[in-house]
Amino acid sequence: MSEESGSGTDGRPSTAFVPGHVTGFFSPCPAADPAIAGSRGAGFTLTDGVEVTVRMTDADAAPDGDAVVTLDGDRISMPPVETVLDELGVATRARVDAESDLPLGTGFGVSGAMALGAALAANDRFDCARSANDLVTLAHRAEVEAGTGLGDVVAQARGGVPIRLDPGAPLHGRLDGVPTTRRVEYVTFGDLSTAEVLAGDTTPLVRAGDTALSRLIERPTLPTLVDASRRFARDAGLLTDRVDETVTAVVDAGGEASMAMLGETVFALDSGLSDAGFDAEACRTCDAGAHLTD
Amino acid sequence: MSEESGSGTDGRPSTAFVPGHVTGFFSPCPAADPAIAGSRGAGFTLTDGVEVTVRMTDADAAPDGDAVVTLDGDRISMPPVETVLDELGVATRARVDAESDLPLGTGFGVSGAMALGAALAANDRFDCARSANDLVTLAHRAEVEAGTGLGDVVAQARGGVPIRLDPGAPLHGRLDGVPTTRRVEYVTFGDLSTAEVLAGDTTPLVRAGDTALSRLIERPTLPTLVDASRRFARDAGLLTDRVDETVTAVVDAGGEASMAMLGETVFALDSGLSDAGFDAEACRTCDAGAHLTD
Repeated sequence: MSEESGSGTDGRPSTAFVPGHVTGFFSPCPAADPAIAGSRGAGFTLTDGVEVTVRMTDADAAPDGDAVVTLDGDRISMPPVETVLDELGVATRARVDAESDLPLGTGFGVSGAMALGAALAANDRFDCARSANDLVTLAHRAEVEAGTGLGDVVAQARGGVPIRLDPGAPLHGRLDGVPTTRRVEYVTFGDLSTAEVLAGDTTPLVRAGDTALSRLIERPTLPTLVDASRRFARDAGLLTDRVDETVTAVVDAGGEASMAMLGETVFALDSGLSDAGFDAEACRTCDAGAHLTD
Repeated sequence: MSEESGSGTDGRPSTAFVPGHVTGFFSPCPAADPAIAGSRGAGFTLTDGVEVTVRMTDADAAPDGDAVVTLDGDRISMPPVETVLDELGVATRARVDAESDLPLGTGFGVSGAMALGAALAANDRFDCARSANDLVTLAHRAEVEAGTGLGDVVAQARGGVPIRLDPGAPLHGRLDGVPTTRRVEYVTFGDLSTAEVLAGDTTPLVRAGDTALSRLIERPTLPTLVDASRRFARDAGLLTDRVDETVTAVVDAGGEASMAMLGETVFALDSGLSDAGFDAEACRTCDAGAHLTD
């Protein structure tokens, strides 16, 4: 019997889809081991996401020894992706091309999606025979080490509306979820640096994040999630003026909205942003977690 | 702010889709607490599954005090569904209608799908505000208590190709998975009673199941899963003549196949059954776990 998988046996590339992930609130949980570090919190995954394709290439194609990584056609430096390829032992033989529905650095988990998508697609393409938890752990560690995210990867692996009860990779961090599916709108004004926010005093952030999580565990519904997120954003002092005005406009129009952590991005349920007069993108919560595609 | 969800706020029914689940191998793990009981093992979820719709009804519609439960238009008795509705406190107000792509009692987890789908849809319809883990735990316990299944519910909640490392409901049983997506074929000759098999001496079954799980953990790929399943079915003495002949025919034709636990059902990867001349149903592994639909 052959041990080879469907797409890994010939010259064809392997492709994974990873949903976008908007965090509504979080409490950073630092730890020496990046598999245990991360954050508690909650948010939702989006049908808008990132498609990551891994191809086999010859060493000649990457003369500097680094894997070629592109996002929407432009070569970029993406340390979490490079770490994942290194850990799988394929960095000198892989080329990674990502196509994203979502902008980078604006609170949609695009870097986490690229790391997780590269792990899934490279595992398939190079027949690495790793388990799903192994690949999620690789991507989570790489993302935490790079400082680009704290909880997107485990949420993106689950899909739906994840509640991160504990920080960390699978088998460390327990997950729950809000059992729902819903239309979501979003609008983005610009990026915010996760690393800069976390470099400051995180005490108010942890306090506000834990309060929000307690509320959501008490009543795990989507309206509670959005309301708890809005209070978190205010209490943690993370609202920018533009975000604050936009969220207020949606709420004044009868909708439910809050800020994506961490980007200058507002998300709303249903048609909340459109109803308030904004030119918003629309998608849905994503029923499936990250997965290989044909 | 309203706490009501999208579909629960008016007279509309709520519907959940739950993928079918084929178990390739398993080790039964009895325990006094049905949330901890269940099985270790592995299998795959299917895009063929069960759609479960919950409607609000008046008490007059159910004069005997039991909720009306139908499967493909026929009223049936389905104790795990009734237990789930009781636990959610909606048994006298709910009507449950299920439409299934898959036959009952033949190893596709239809009873688990009905219990889990009823939990998800009733939670939405009646605004019960339970978390995803709570609902999966309710359905798992109801299924174990009824003796109709041991691990389908947690697998169906996850989607993909689940590996059940431990028995039990979420937060008890750890899950992993084979990171893959694949075409699957199946053919069914008849039903087998899970309860009868488990009433016999399960020692050989536990030994064969644990051996299969060790092999799959060592190399978590789909070919390993199917090969380990085939050895499990033989070593545990569960093959019927028709299943044995069919599996052998697929393997002789160069394919990969085994038996669904527990039904007189054969599954194969890709076009394994068609290639061997069988008139098989075809679907795919299901990327999404159980979820509400619009």
